[in-house]
Amino acid sequence: MNKVKTGKLYGIGVGPGDPELLTLKAVRLIKSADIISYPTNQAGKSIAWQIAAPHAPKATKKLGFYVPINVNRAAANLAYDDAAKKISKHLDAGLDVACLCEGDAFFYGSFAYIFERLVDNFATEIIPSMPAFVAASAALKIPMLIQNEDLQIIPATLDEAILIDKIRTGNNIAIYKVGRHFAKLRQILEKFNLLDKANLVEYVSQKQQKVTPMASTNHDTRPYFSMIIINKR
Amino acid sequence: MNKVKTGKLYGIGVGPGDPELLTLKAVRLIKSADIISYPTNQAGKSIAWQIAAPHAPKATKKLGFYVPINVNRAAANLAYDDAAKKISKHLDAGLDVACLCEGDAFFYGSFAYIFERLVDNFATEIIPSMPAFVAASAALKIPMLIQNEDLQIIPATLDEAILIDKIRTGNNIAIYKVGRHFAKLRQILEKFNLLDKANLVEYVSQKQQKVTPMASTNHDTRPYFSMIIINKR
Repeated sequence: MNKVKTGKLYGIGVGPGDPELLTLKAVRLIKSADIISYPTNQAGKSIAWQIAAPHAPKATKKLGFYVPINVNRAAANLAYDDAAKKISKHLDAGLDVACLCEGDAFFYGSFAYIFERLVDNFATEIIPSMPAFVAASAALKIPMLIQNEDLQIIPATLDEAILIDKIRTGNNIAIYKVGRHFAKLRQILEKFNLLDKANLVEYVSQKQQKVTPMASTNHDTRPYFSMIIINKR
Repeated sequence: MNKVKTGKLYGIGVGPGDPELLTLKAVRLIKSADIISYPTNQAGKSIAWQIAAPHAPKATKKLGFYVPINVNRAAANLAYDDAAKKISKHLDAGLDVACLCEGDAFFYGSFAYIFERLVDNFATEIIPSMPAFVAASAALKIPMLIQNEDLQIIPATLDEAILIDKIRTGNNIAIYKVGRHFAKLRQILEKFNLLDKANLVEYVSQKQQKVTPMASTNHDTRPYFSMIIINKR
């Protein structure tokens, strides 16, 4: 039987937004991949692709896939099924596919959903990158962890009682998925006298990066691409 | 008055060990710095410098500093005082100093101690990089965070009751500074039926990288440059 050797699937984190925060390894694999795949918004745009594009040879084939984002996961799951099927055809044909992800591929990254659909049938490799919270502490110029401190990374979507418990018991806290939960979070921080220890970081590492002390925000603030970092020391 | 413009201090994370995990930004600044500074062991060796060295021009001046590691912080503080004084002389002379750090400069990084001594007197910039735990999840091929999960990053040096609480309540846990605390951690994981959900990762992203399921370890295991990653899903 004349079976073609299947291709390899790479999950590549492109970092938090600054194109210079790509790793050398990510650049090498973006240059050598046969196919570059990435999630897009409904208009077909992809921040991950924008970061990678300057390193991709013109001949590289692009494979964008739109993933609808809403609380019901069914539509997203169908989109991942479809993307995984398209990617697997290229892998079956012996082509290497680099699947891009903002931040790190395994840190709230969309790649996890492509990965779980393909890991049993193809060779895979994850190229790690820095999650956004690391770039946030660099932007704030406040060390994230020193000595024997801990760090809690939590999504703002948690139940309020759990959120409060994590925020009260951690030395340092990075809150992801802030968006429409901002007013609730601000209220919690105010109640526990933590407004002075917290900062809102928007568009971290990007040109529009904006750092706002939480004490300077109000309940009507509508942050974009943001996280809240709390350092209690 | 003919005052020289002072230099800029860069805190540069070089990543977890694989030289290809350097960012493009780190490489650019390693190339352009007048002085490259880094902590060393007692023999004068530095992993951070080894990672950066291939990118540094031959003329770059090196400034290694030995930091004694023990529970008593007094000796370390004196070493940081001395290193900061030497670095400040170069900054005063108008030279840019890149201070290297394994992992990320603000994530249990030694740079925080240089930074706090110099931030009030000099221009500073932090170049973020990935902490080791991100490379660990890539090595394990287990997503670190999906959907609405949380992640606790904790040092093994915490009081046992706090350790147990964090390990029991988190979805995902990355335990740093494992070393001589290994037997205690293993015991906790066994007690709470978590051995099957935990992995020991040694020398992450380096040639000697070794992944061991915690269930395959025993109390006598003596891990090197290691962390324990727990993913409960």
